[in-house]
Amino acid sequence: MSHNSFGHLFRVTTWGESHGAALGCVVDGCPPGIRFKLAEIQAELDRRRPGQSRFVTQRQEPDQVKILSGIVVDEDGETMITTGTPVSMMIENVDQRSKDYGEIARQYRPGHADYTYDVKYGLRDYRGGGRSSARETAARVAAGALARKVVPGLVVRGALISMGEKQIDRANWDWGFVGHEDNPFFTPDPASVPVFSTYLDGIRKAGSSVGAVVEIVAEGVPAGLGAPLYGKLDQDIASNLMSINAVKGVEIGNGFEAAHITGEENADEMRMGNDGRPRFLSNKAGGVLGGIATGEPVVARFAVKPTSSILTPRRTIDTQGQDVELRTKGRHDPCVGIRAVPVGEAMIACAIADHYLRHRGQVGSR
Amino acid sequence: MSHNSFGHLFRVTTWGESHGAALGCVVDGCPPGIRFKLAEIQAELDRRRPGQSRFVTQRQEPDQVKILSGIVVDEDGETMITTGTPVSMMIENVDQRSKDYGEIARQYRPGHADYTYDVKYGLRDYRGGGRSSARETAARVAAGALARKVVPGLVVRGALISMGEKQIDRANWDWGFVGHEDNPFFTPDPASVPVFSTYLDGIRKAGSSVGAVVEIVAEGVPAGLGAPLYGKLDQDIASNLMSINAVKGVEIGNGFEAAHITGEENADEMRMGNDGRPRFLSNKAGGVLGGIATGEPVVARFAVKPTSSILTPRRTIDTQGQDVELRTKGRHDPCVGIRAVPVGEAMIACAIADHYLRHRGQVGSR
Amino acid sequence: MSHNSFGHLFRVTTWGESHGAALGCVVDGCPPGIRFKLAEIQAELDRRRPGQSRFVTQRQEPDQVKILSGIVVDEDGETMITTGTPVSMMIENVDQRSKDYGEIARQYRPGHADYTYDVKYGLRDYRGGGRSSARETAARVAAGALARKVVPGLVVRGALISMGEKQIDRANWDWGFVGHEDNPFFTPDPASVPVFSTYLDGIRKAGSSVGAVVEIVAEGVPAGLGAPLYGKLDQDIASNLMSINAVKGVEIGNGFEAAHITGEENADEMRMGNDGRPRFLSNKAGGVLGGIATGEPVVARFAVKPTSSILTPRRTIDTQGQDVELRTKGRHDPCVGIRAVPVGEAMIACAIADHYLRHRGQVGSR
Amino acid sequence: MSHNSFGHLFRVTTWGESHGAALGCVVDGCPPGIRFKLAEIQAELDRRRPGQSRFVTQRQEPDQVKILSGIVVDEDGETMITTGTPVSMMIENVDQRSKDYGEIARQYRPGHADYTYDVKYGLRDYRGGGRSSARETAARVAAGALARKVVPGLVVRGALISMGEKQIDRANWDWGFVGHEDNPFFTPDPASVPVFSTYLDGIRKAGSSVGAVVEIVAEGVPAGLGAPLYGKLDQDIASNLMSINAVKGVEIGNGFEAAHITGEENADEMRMGNDGRPRFLSNKAGGVLGGIATGEPVVARFAVKPTSSILTPRRTIDTQGQDVELRTKGRHDPCVGIRAVPVGEAMIACAIADHYLRHRGQVGSR
Repeated sequence: MSHNSFGHLFRVTTWGESHGAALGCVVDGCPPGIRFKLAEIQAELDRRRPGQSRFVTQRQEPDQVKILSGIVVDEDGETMITTGTPVSMMIENVDQRSKDYGEIARQYRPGHADYTYDVKYGLRDYRGGGRSSARETAARVAAGALARKVVPGLVVRGALISMGEKQIDRANWDWGFVGHEDNPFFTPDPASVPVFSTYLDGIRKAGSSVGAVVEIVAEGVPAGLGAPLYGKLDQDIASNLMSINAVKGVEIGNGFEAAHITGEENADEMRMGNDGRPRFLSNKAGGVLGGIATGEPVVARFAVKPTSSILTPRRTIDTQGQDVELRTKGRHDPCVGIRAVPVGEAMIACAIADHYLRHRGQVGSR
Repeated sequence: MSHNSFGHLFRVTTWGESHGAALGCVVDGCPPGIRFKLAEIQAELDRRRPGQSRFVTQRQEPDQVKILSGIVVDEDGETMITTGTPVSMMIENVDQRSKDYGEIARQYRPGHADYTYDVKYGLRDYRGGGRSSARETAARVAAGALARKVVPGLVVRGALISMGEKQIDRANWDWGFVGHEDNPFFTPDPASVPVFSTYLDGIRKAGSSVGAVVEIVAEGVPAGLGAPLYGKLDQDIASNLMSINAVKGVEIGNGFEAAHITGEENADEMRMGNDGRPRFLSNKAGGVLGGIATGEPVVARFAVKPTSSILTPRRTIDTQGQDVELRTKGRHDPCVGIRAVPVGEAMIACAIADHYLRHRGQVGSR
Repeated sequence: MSHNSFGHLFRVTTWGESHGAALGCVVDGCPPGIRFKLAEIQAELDRRRPGQSRFVTQRQEPDQVKILSGIVVDEDGETMITTGTPVSMMIENVDQRSKDYGEIARQYRPGHADYTYDVKYGLRDYRGGGRSSARETAARVAAGALARKVVPGLVVRGALISMGEKQIDRANWDWGFVGHEDNPFFTPDPASVPVFSTYLDGIRKAGSSVGAVVEIVAEGVPAGLGAPLYGKLDQDIASNLMSINAVKGVEIGNGFEAAHITGEENADEMRMGNDGRPRFLSNKAGGVLGGIATGEPVVARFAVKPTSSILTPRRTIDTQGQDVELRTKGRHDPCVGIRAVPVGEAMIACAIADHYLRHRGQVGSR
Repeated sequence: MSHNSFGHLFRVTTWGESHGAALGCVVDGCPPGIRFKLAEIQAELDRRRPGQSRFVTQRQEPDQVKILSGIVVDEDGETMITTGTPVSMMIENVDQRSKDYGEIARQYRPGHADYTYDVKYGLRDYRGGGRSSARETAARVAAGALARKVVPGLVVRGALISMGEKQIDRANWDWGFVGHEDNPFFTPDPASVPVFSTYLDGIRKAGSSVGAVVEIVAEGVPAGLGAPLYGKLDQDIASNLMSINAVKGVEIGNGFEAAHITGEENADEMRMGNDGRPRFLSNKAGGVLGGIATGEPVVARFAVKPTSSILTPRRTIDTQGQDVELRTKGRHDPCVGIRAVPVGEAMIACAIADHYLRHRGQVGSR
């Protein structure tokens, strides 16, 4: 069962709510002998951390990760080495702003899971969104940082490619720019920064919000990972991405475009390379054919809906069944898709690490 | 693990290849006391069956399903009643045209899984595509027919909404027309039939193929089904749809459109109905909020790529690493998206049946 | 979930009832490239087959296995090679003696699952015991025959070591005698044959039944298979054995004896062998320490209760809640523990094959 | 996969080593609305806690449990209510005695998992036994305390029934005595206390150790829980018990005795009770028939081997492949079977809670 776990051989279980004492994850199945520094995990968390620009929530959380189990420390006193036992990682919550949550407790915010949680469970931890808060994604990023270490040569990078009505110019794509200090958007297009800035300032000041599309590219995925039908690599990537809060759609390779073209246009032809290895002449498939990796970069995109918390009053009901109007105050991301970039990377890294181990299990190291 | 299974409490395992003796599925976890007639299962299979119009493959398969276990027959001699033990269903392959598969055996068809299978497994059953043949989807449809019986009041219907460059006019949507005998496309728009016919005749005669978008709507999904993050109803629907051959993208509700609009535009407001029950004033969310069903219709769409088997020669390599040109002959669907409609319905029915049981397990019958 | 499946990477799902059309299993995760002959699978089934001596049920079932998927046939036309896709195996039921099952339908046989099935499911296939018939174990034996091929060098052998009040003399242990044609008991002690024969003839003629203890020894289990706590090799072996009908207890190594001795007596000391490899000077642990294989033979024993179907009238109730007395007629094994020997071997072979793949997945081929 | 998890709908994942910062568990699938006090969880942990008599290890650990997620606190400020999201529980390690672990690091202790861990993983956290330390069982007890709350009316109690050569007199069985302050053995027989005391003092002073048999009885298990073959209630109980460190055998009901008697002797006859409900006239089956609960008390026993850490020098090898002699110093339980009593209770409570939810899922609340 997988209510709060994902993956099979590289299996991640997350726990925690927005305003509880802490949140975290247990990574079960991480192979022994993986070497990493705590700073490397922390660096990934820092990319996702709130409060780093005016375009994301102002909640201040250091998001310091602690490793509680599953490792020994090498002689340098710094390098951690996994032992093959479960790696438990914990992030304590710090900035749980004391406020009156009465309104959220009593009224169902449109677009949020308030109503559905109450229908399902009969009660909920409404403080800060509880379990469905985007804070939970910190645990995913921590797990993903470890997953990246499992597959030799794997590089997983993501970028925001559209925000509301605005989109990047793919001709300007520069991976090196994504992490630039003047780039608060994870955009790969330097020219898009002023466009997104102006646009999102307007959204933010209006108390509104906007959606986004994120693209993730995984390079170094060994050909052969995946399975034909129900353990398809692209299926598990899609599932992992859809598990992220606010995601409403997922594509692999050319995705929905494939539905509008012909077989001739869609085929990725092949030729032998000079090095004696097969080459695909294009990558419309996004690195996966029949559920199995081709060796080309794995490409996925996902749509993030606009943050549901907005200042414009919306019609809703309360827990007593009364019609009410609700403005959602508090600290929110005007475009939660921005911080979804490292989260998407992490989820894809986890999917690939899992399939790497599954493939090794079923097929060996042919 | 799930290389060939899906679902947890309503768990389906499929087996079989295109040109083996048979294919089938085992449904484990079907509740006891579910009553159905074999003809009802067969009726769903008949909707997916090949050879029914010139727009689908001409392979002639009766696709007669046999139920081998898990049922007792009621006193009427016809009604089957599930006993709670595994339901094994089998469909024998009949029309395995004797032909020379040497070319497929030796050359990797672009867009197919030939190359990736060989990379992964080192050998494959190349006859008719083996495990990755669309024939496998017959087993899904059989399982889905049973799943539909598990959730009282559930109605799952699908329709083809675009084919290549052509699309329906949603203003004409008529569910009643989808199964009409003059409608070989599962389109809900009567006006689209001549358009699709002409278009697809052109594609077919050119030996080409084209993609499609399919939309599935599930009504009668009880509010509360699903889970917040890793067992999200929409996630499991997306995963199930992505497991279908040739699917490259999945959306829930307004899907990718949500990435381009504001929070105000995306909110589904609520009001109490005259019957004292909550109402959503729109359904952009597609029936799922925070991974949990709202009680509104669950809406999903998926993109099917064009059939990779086309007559136009494509560049590829053979198993010896030689560059070759390949035309794919044989009987193929010029638009495999058509027959994907009942398959998509089945996969969503299975996802909902599974969550129905999971919800009952975790929460009871509150 | 595992209501009718077991194993993770080598995953077996069984289906079928005693008097249905057929029974079988789907083996998902069998590595590609495993070569076997159908006759090898059949040979294992023949060891378990009923009707071979007066000491087992007289039901006549040829138990011919068919392989429906997951293989290609090699050029010799005989050798099958697994492709990595699910292997579906089916055994048709032949000797479904037409009889009046009314009594079993209406009365709960003591020691059988009749009452508990009705409590759980509300209905049941009572013919021949339905799903809980020992016929189901044929599917396990078929899966086990494949599992044996997965682990290079693995040899799994079993023997009956006690029957009711009688037991073998371990000093006479001769593996070669277990399969001897004059040995209808799978006993390793030639001297026990006349003892068991006379004893069981008495039991059989009295319409009674008797329990047994079976011991399985697996040699060639690579050191390192298993996991420390919740995927312990001995735990999964115990679970697999307990899943066999009528099994009431399981031991690993010295088992319950370990509870009665001291740490000094229980320790398996070690020394380096002349070949530079570690040696254990004894094997009280039964080949597993801390859930992980030591490289010594894995030894397990299980207790099989006496067949519950006996001619002596027993007090019970009927489905209407009336007190009744019941004699169980029909064809039964007077000591079902005999035919449990190949079943136990199969279940242990499956557990080891699964852990072999799991180990390769998590740790690689260090 | 289940390397560090168990259960399906009530799913427990544990993490942590003996000398890490902490250990704990995540309980996923606990139904919402379960009310408990932290003191109730703590009370169970206190029963297992070391250092409470001279007969158990002298390590001093307060074993204070913290609940980090998955609950809201009721208005009384004390009662916790589960929300249906994962319950993360953590116990910090306190008494990690600073000592030289060099010997354990370099030499394989006979009977311990030192050698097998190194063979499997290539490295290990040797401090205090690392992951295989009995400290890990604290996490199980915490999870079990929650599991007890899930099934209304469930009472799970355990007792030590034999220690080495000594055993209780079942005629004296008094559940009320098991938790008595003058009873350091969890024995149900008051007369056994002086016998066990004298015996174990001798063992302890000799630096030796001894095994034990523990019996667990679960009352209030609803008839119908379980499944026929691969999700048998007794199978999952056996698996859970075998997952406990040092357990070498498991029995259900009369267990191995069943192998030595006849069908007549083994049958649990039935009669209708005066209250119109079925009664079993005996309970040799231990509350389970055909894998499904009968409604009678579920009875299981397990054998715990003697602690492998003893002062008598034993022959072994070191990590360099040299023959050595090893005395295991440090703080150890002379009979680890004593503290296994609450652990066994917890594991059975978890198995029953899981099956309670699984049954509700598959069958509903018939």
